Amino acid sequence: MSTTDPAENLELTELGQQLRVDAVRAADAAGSGHPTSSMSAADLAAVLLTRHLHYDFDQPEHPGNDRFVLSKGHASPLLYAMYRAAGAVDDEELLTFRRHGSRLEGHPTPRIPWVDVATGSLGQGLPVGVGMALAGKRLDQLPYRVWVLSGDSEMAEGSVWEAAEHAAYENLDNLTLVVDVNRLGQRGPTRHQRDLAAYGRRLRGFGWHTIEIDGHDVDAIDLAYAEARSTEGQPTAIIAGTRKGRGVAAVEDREGMHGKPLPDAEAAIEELGGPRFVQVDVAKPDAAHLPRTDRSGHLTLPRYELGEKVATRDAYGQALTALGTAYSDVVALDGEVGDSTRTEFFAKEHPDRYFECYIAEQQLVAAAVGMQARGYTPYACTFAAFLTRAHDFVRMAAISGAELNLVGSHAGVAIGQDGPSQMGLEDLAMFRSVHGSTVLYPCDAPQAAKLVAEMAGARGIRYLRTDRGETPVIYGPDETFPIGGSKVLRSGSEDAATLIGAGHTLHACLRAAAILATEGIEVRVIDLYSVKPVDEATLRTAADETGALVTVEDHHPEGGIGDAVAEAFADGRPAPRLVRMAVRNMPGSATPEEQQSAAGIDADSVAATVRLLVERAVVA
Amino acid sequence: MSTTDPAENLELTELGQQLRVDAVRAADAAGSGHPTSSMSAADLAAVLLTRHLHYDFDQPEHPGNDRFVLSKGHASPLLYAMYRAAGAVDDEELLTFRRHGSRLEGHPTPRIPWVDVATGSLGQGLPVGVGMALAGKRLDQLPYRVWVLSGDSEMAEGSVWEAAEHAAYENLDNLTLVVDVNRLGQRGPTRHQRDLAAYGRRLRGFGWHTIEIDGHDVDAIDLAYAEARSTEGQPTAIIAGTRKGRGVAAVEDREGMHGKPLPDAEAAIEELGGPRFVQVDVAKPDAAHLPRTDRSGHLTLPRYELGEKVATRDAYGQALTALGTAYSDVVALDGEVGDSTRTEFFAKEHPDRYFECYIAEQQLVAAAVGMQARGYTPYACTFAAFLTRAHDFVRMAAISGAELNLVGSHAGVAIGQDGPSQMGLEDLAMFRSVHGSTVLYPCDAPQAAKLVAEMAGARGIRYLRTDRGETPVIYGPDETFPIGGSKVLRSGSEDAATLIGAGHTLHACLRAAAILATEGIEVRVIDLYSVKPVDEATLRTAADETGALVTVEDHHPEGGIGDAVAEAFADGRPAPRLVRMAVRNMPGSATPEEQQSAAGIDADSVAATVRLLVERAVVA
Repeated sequence: MSTTDPAENLELTELGQQLRVDAVRAADAAGSGHPTSSMSAADLAAVLLTRHLHYDFDQPEHPGNDRFVLSKGHASPLLYAMYRAAGAVDDEELLTFRRHGSRLEGHPTPRIPWVDVATGSLGQGLPVGVGMALAGKRLDQLPYRVWVLSGDSEMAEGSVWEAAEHAAYENLDNLTLVVDVNRLGQRGPTRHQRDLAAYGRRLRGFGWHTIEIDGHDVDAIDLAYAEARSTEGQPTAIIAGTRKGRGVAAVEDREGMHGKPLPDAEAAIEELGGPRFVQVDVAKPDAAHLPRTDRSGHLTLPRYELGEKVATRDAYGQALTALGTAYSDVVALDGEVGDSTRTEFFAKEHPDRYFECYIAEQQLVAAAVGMQARGYTPYACTFAAFLTRAHDFVRMAAISGAELNLVGSHAGVAIGQDGPSQMGLEDLAMFRSVHGSTVLYPCDAPQAAKLVAEMAGARGIRYLRTDRGETPVIYGPDETFPIGGSKVLRSGSEDAATLIGAGHTLHACLRAAAILATEGIEVRVIDLYSVKPVDEATLRTAADETGALVTVEDHHPEGGIGDAVAEAFADGRPAPRLVRMAVRNMPGSATPEEQQSAAGIDADSVAATVRLLVERAVVA
Repeated sequence: MSTTDPAENLELTELGQQLRVDAVRAADAAGSGHPTSSMSAADLAAVLLTRHLHYDFDQPEHPGNDRFVLSKGHASPLLYAMYRAAGAVDDEELLTFRRHGSRLEGHPTPRIPWVDVATGSLGQGLPVGVGMALAGKRLDQLPYRVWVLSGDSEMAEGSVWEAAEHAAYENLDNLTLVVDVNRLGQRGPTRHQRDLAAYGRRLRGFGWHTIEIDGHDVDAIDLAYAEARSTEGQPTAIIAGTRKGRGVAAVEDREGMHGKPLPDAEAAIEELGGPRFVQVDVAKPDAAHLPRTDRSGHLTLPRYELGEKVATRDAYGQALTALGTAYSDVVALDGEVGDSTRTEFFAKEHPDRYFECYIAEQQLVAAAVGMQARGYTPYACTFAAFLTRAHDFVRMAAISGAELNLVGSHAGVAIGQDGPSQMGLEDLAMFRSVHGSTVLYPCDAPQAAKLVAEMAGARGIRYLRTDRGETPVIYGPDETFPIGGSKVLRSGSEDAATLIGAGHTLHACLRAAAILATEGIEVRVIDLYSVKPVDEATLRTAADETGALVTVEDHHPEGGIGDAVAEAFADGRPAPRLVRMAVRNMPGSATPEEQQSAAGIDADSVAATVRLLVERAVVA
């Protein structure tokens, strides 16, 4: 695989220079971009493309293709130069870099068919690559390799070390991390500058095989890639010492040259030997077949009796297990709390498709992102509160166009004694603000089970919120819950207001309605199980017919159900009277009932609010 | 400091048993809690309290006090048992554990005077401890030590490794991490179980001094603490092998015993030798004086000319520098993007109070949390998009009651070519949903400067959003911008609608108003620089007088300015007609102008929307 033939090495060196020239040209045409960060890694890229990567650019969906993740996404000019060298992108397109409408964006996204996941938020390439490598080993069971090219600055991100731990623990010898140690971060030197051994010690401490090389010595690079490919039982990290801006004296290894075109592109191109076009015949993968995954199995969701008390987290675990039985593309991940979230039901039934991610929520979500990029349908679950840990990964997953199910348990103050650190009180705001997301919050077990199944066929980032405590079953087994819908559970022509809840607050709304009915006050009750998209038509009708809407949620007042309802009336037409009941206090420890009462989201508080509203309407 | 006197060691062992008994009793009284996680670390706690901690429980504000952070916050019964042993909490209060109104919550919070920061979201104790230790070394310059007691499960969190890197790089020999390796996580064995060396290799790889011990051997523990205290130039980790539920055969080292009271508390207490009360005379610190920090200096904010074009990020950097000159308690931190965020202005002027956190946003926020716990006023800054990385730390900081300034630059699509990975489009939703937060978004340089100063005196988590591009100065030097206020920039009796913007969209609103005026349509314009709290009175007046409100924001539609305005009308009174203009597309690369046009938040789009609104109102 490796060679010391001087002629062949010259060709590699030539290709490296071509990649540099093209990076300089692209950034110059754009008037912005990161040529110097591209130039440091050009030789690493040249050798990979020519000698080690197996990829069919005509068939990005080829199951045997290696995966290449450019974690240092700002070095996109290098990636696009690689595409040009591989004949996948022509010179004209290369020079559309960063222009409006071009798929060659400032940071790569899957608008490009050869890009699996968006990068540009540092420290995400390796975590996602671990997900792909896990899929390769345990699901696809194919010999493709995952190559991650990372910068040195991003090694400071904790997510890299969550991934390093996960990869070594799972013996991912199909994964290679290439660290481009070019010494300079955005605003100056990195912590470890040229100390390759510092990175080596850390990675070896985590159980990796490491190789330290001169990242501009094509022969050393070639040998290192070959060694990585032949290393068994461990992931390999190639720690490559390079020079930022390599090959152009005006910028090479100089501070203040990050993220901008070269000052004199023409001179730089000349110094690099001028434009050229070495085309690389990238090796294609061997024929490969994915294990058949299908959804032809009959889905038998769990059934519950009306009035039975079941926690929605239990229904999640049971429905997910059933889904796993019927659909072979469904996989589950959890952050070492599967006994609480109930992901353990799935783990016991389908251990081959369960992935324990331990207490590392960034890696939990990243692994799921990697698996969906390989065609699987992941459900990743932890406490709703701790999904905030992975917010940036969710944000980037949306940019990746990822098809992903995320499930957060232990919603709100209703968890009781454990106190605020364990309460999901911001999760609805977080997930609603994600581009193209779906946000679901079931109030009983049958609804939870149906929504778990609905999620499998939805688009984008799908979030399901579950409760810790039991709620009574109110829906029969034939009820359906389409995404974007709602259920009107109580309605009459004399309704003085509409109560809107979801999850356990829906039951508080029902109880409040019953209390008020005894006083002669009739109210409508809507189960807003689909928090995003929201059922605007039903809300509009309720507003027109009842005049006032009251939202009740176990969440902070901002960005959750109150906001979802308000947004339904942001079309310039007259809006109804609105009241938001939500958690405005800082909870401590207390029973679930005490918590809900203290937060003012229990049935008594809801009834009191409606009385005030009705009184005011009469006065007005 | 260490001893092998058998009598003294017996006393330590006795204290360990007492702490176990009290943990069992507290959880039993509460009917929930984590006694087994407390019992594994009881000997580690007993030796620390008796021999090594310096703390005056009567004076938690004593500047010489050591800091003790219980990172494994679920082991709160152990902490409260320590307080009882130290005479700080009596037996009656101990048994209020987890009851409504008790300060002894399920996870510790600063409602207790001896707790500096809330814990319970794992992997946060060490990062915050690093902030305290940095304060001790570089700001307070006092010899107190920071002790962090961590679980083994939480070592999987990336944030621990961000902190490990930061601590070793800064040579924090005043910091000791004690890892309670009890083998069992919540749902079963940890990755490394009893392999103490696995933790040792990782921490040594990061540059730590490590000591592996039997965590139930009080003499070994004593020696290890002494060694940690005498180790210079490096932080020390004591990796202690322990047994979960130690001392009670029914639960010791058994799976399925996490997070619940002991099955037979009475028998367990008997097995542990029965209740007892060894009171510990905890060593008090030597007299110590903090360096004088004051705000008596005269604050001279930067001045700008009307019409001058200045980016608000520049004004942030300039104002922060001025603040640092006037107020000696102000410190600044940045995530290795200070050249872009402009924190570098402060770093150059006040290098002694600048903390480079490199690309590690969790550690960036955690270090700031640690420093505010020591009485400083930190400003921590990175791109708004990357603050999502620290969401869980911000959430926990709110539970800690932290006084913290966070600044996010590069807001929205207006950053231009870099594309969506770098755009803060969810930050307003994230920060608004934080309990007790303040959210500010200035539109010009003088306003930005004034708000940077306002933040220093505000409460809770304060967030400031800055723009990358320049905006014209519209406010004179004497204008004031109180938190919770707004500015009506254009107003008349014939206003057909109200445009509401903040940051650069305020200027789009002003331009749209000018366009519309040429067509005979007058609109009001409000600068909503205080997004939370929001100026309800001014919005209500605008609604009453103009009938329709149009919000314009460079942010996703959920949870931001549109929501802030809607929430102002959630008091049950009639709401006005509302329209939310926000970023609903997935941006690619393009110029700032193209981006704003594509997202429909530029002046032309705003004007078009108002025309439609006015037309519809006429028709209706």
